[in-house]
Amino acid sequence: MLQISHRGQLMPPSPIRKLVPFAEAAKKKGIKVYHLNIGQPDIETPAPVLDAVRHFDFKVLEYSHSAGNESYRRKLVEYYGRVGVDIHYNQIIVTTGGSEAILFAMMTCLDPGDEVIIPEPFYANYNGFAVEAGVRVVPIRSDIRSGFALPPIQDFEAAITPRTKGIMICNPNNPTGYLYNAVEMETLKDICLRHDLYLFSDEAYREFCYTGTHTSALHLKGADQHVILLDTISKRYSACGGRIGALVTRNKTVLDAAMKFAQARLSPPSFAQIAGEAAIDLPGNYFDTTRAEYQSRRDLLVTRLNQMKGVFCPNPGGAFYAMAELPVDNTDNFCQWLLESFSFEGQTVMLAPASGFYGTPGLGGQEVRLAYVLNKTDLARAMDCLEKALEVYPGRLS
Amino acid sequence: MLQISHRGQLMPPSPIRKLVPFAEAAKKKGIKVYHLNIGQPDIETPAPVLDAVRHFDFKVLEYSHSAGNESYRRKLVEYYGRVGVDIHYNQIIVTTGGSEAILFAMMTCLDPGDEVIIPEPFYANYNGFAVEAGVRVVPIRSDIRSGFALPPIQDFEAAITPRTKGIMICNPNNPTGYLYNAVEMETLKDICLRHDLYLFSDEAYREFCYTGTHTSALHLKGADQHVILLDTISKRYSACGGRIGALVTRNKTVLDAAMKFAQARLSPPSFAQIAGEAAIDLPGNYFDTTRAEYQSRRDLLVTRLNQMKGVFCPNPGGAFYAMAELPVDNTDNFCQWLLESFSFEGQTVMLAPASGFYGTPGLGGQEVRLAYVLNKTDLARAMDCLEKALEVYPGRLS
Repeated sequence: MLQISHRGQLMPPSPIRKLVPFAEAAKKKGIKVYHLNIGQPDIETPAPVLDAVRHFDFKVLEYSHSAGNESYRRKLVEYYGRVGVDIHYNQIIVTTGGSEAILFAMMTCLDPGDEVIIPEPFYANYNGFAVEAGVRVVPIRSDIRSGFALPPIQDFEAAITPRTKGIMICNPNNPTGYLYNAVEMETLKDICLRHDLYLFSDEAYREFCYTGTHTSALHLKGADQHVILLDTISKRYSACGGRIGALVTRNKTVLDAAMKFAQARLSPPSFAQIAGEAAIDLPGNYFDTTRAEYQSRRDLLVTRLNQMKGVFCPNPGGAFYAMAELPVDNTDNFCQWLLESFSFEGQTVMLAPASGFYGTPGLGGQEVRLAYVLNKTDLARAMDCLEKALEVYPGRLS
Repeated sequence: MLQISHRGQLMPPSPIRKLVPFAEAAKKKGIKVYHLNIGQPDIETPAPVLDAVRHFDFKVLEYSHSAGNESYRRKLVEYYGRVGVDIHYNQIIVTTGGSEAILFAMMTCLDPGDEVIIPEPFYANYNGFAVEAGVRVVPIRSDIRSGFALPPIQDFEAAITPRTKGIMICNPNNPTGYLYNAVEMETLKDICLRHDLYLFSDEAYREFCYTGTHTSALHLKGADQHVILLDTISKRYSACGGRIGALVTRNKTVLDAAMKFAQARLSPPSFAQIAGEAAIDLPGNYFDTTRAEYQSRRDLLVTRLNQMKGVFCPNPGGAFYAMAELPVDNTDNFCQWLLESFSFEGQTVMLAPASGFYGTPGLGGQEVRLAYVLNKTDLARAMDCLEKALEVYPGRLS
């Protein structure tokens, strides 16, 4: 009898996609579904970025360099310079999305059985890459009541074992929207230096900070050997389908080993590298406009949520996600019920139950993640739906 | 002291790229280098394929479905139908190049410590993906003297252990160019059925067969649960940089598990899916033209090689590679010497030493792989260089 692998069985299904069949069924019944469940921005990819791809002039769609086109990597040096990160182009490996940067980092730095500490809730797909790499994710809890701030040092220290090889963060955070401040980043650095750990820093949402400035892990002094930056153009330029990211580090041993993983898969996608390169020449105010749009959506969403009886939503400092606590028995049930059994004026809303973002079983059962990736009109309607739904949901807690 | 992972150390450097610094140095000296070392075709990507990408009309570069656009998968059903493979669109997962299909197949079907039998010499990057998946590659030797035909059944049987989970082939073969015939394919099927093994069949070069017809593993009757097809548009349409491939199987358990790996990395690249979809509407004679071109190159290359004293090159039945035995001490040394110390009329040739394509240490030391991906004028000049080089190489065997 043929068997699939143990890891194939262990591999978690995507928590943000598992409700999709219920959404499809709702749509077949004629119900409009507002998608706040997935981080797919509705903001248009900047026209110059798309035009650059339209105007490519090669005749053979060749492999690029395994580390990405040199012209793109040199351009990325400019980009990083603008955010205060001094880096050489050969310290950048262009990856197939941020996803591949995460996989390469885990594969390069950790062996099967090794552990990586991640504050929970965290980006659910870290679990998937950890299963691929045989790595154990050790979650330490950040709390909705403190707005998901960095857990205290003693929680990290308590979680460290001889197998711990690194700490992974996402800043600003998906799913919580929390923006780690400079003091918290220094704290992380100190722990990593003291215990000889890698600091994996996923900075996919760097430009989307509303209540403070962004501290990149590559700003930290004296941590050059420890910091592995994981990056992507997906959210920055609404270019999710391009599948272009980057692994950036000043640690040459890590770079050299990561390059072998990059060579094995030959090269990152050629077309979207053109997009990524063109994006770096966007006008300086591009991010101001996008940031202002996301911020006004955040304000609408968070205000509406906190006006609902029994709902608590800390104000996120960055990214385009918010986590909210709902007065329901269980958000897995509630989110499915929203699609299966509820509609308000022919509409409903799709949310991501938070349980999939926690590593500790049982946590997140009262929480949902909301991605504010829709325009404010739709967002307001989605909030109307949620408000009505909470009034009539049979599993509402009193 | 920070360490990289054991697997990061184990990961093999690319054997076809390790000579690159020597090629770059030669070019800096003004020497023209003919690249027969890498399977990057010079044949133009068909204009309608590139035009389809130029004329995309979306405004947001969104994630596609994790299994690839449904429209593309439905189109692929047409394509497979034309090569006699009856498949449903939901039995196809579009991957990021054939590379990702190989990785997903290993991750889904094999656990760390499991074994996969591969006739050697084989595509060197199988080693890399095996290291990522913790899988042990068990090579069994195919011999240049028999043109690299499938090794006898008893060699497979002797290699099978309780940890053996599959056999992997590439048909027609990279690096040997060998085309497995229908009888050999049935033999492989029988072994897989008898020993409950997966048959991983990499058919990247399906259309490039010169001395027989292609038998796909998906043509084999009664092996639906065993066969995992690994595919790519890279060579078929000279579209290597697109990074679009596919994992195709009728085994639903494998598909469901592979989909979880696909979901973790969100989606394959969007732009090149457009290219892949357009390619399926190319005129019916597209492959005739391309095949004829490769075949005439093969004829030139193989004839020239066998005319050189002490050189032996079996006539490859497919793909665009040939393996040749050279009268030299060691082809690693010879290939480096070609770049470092040799030129003829200001020109030299870059070849891939075969040692990197063998799993058994010590094999392949007299062999090189040549990719006939250059036009015939360049190919003839490259053969002139090789001929002269063999006359003067200090490590020539008598």
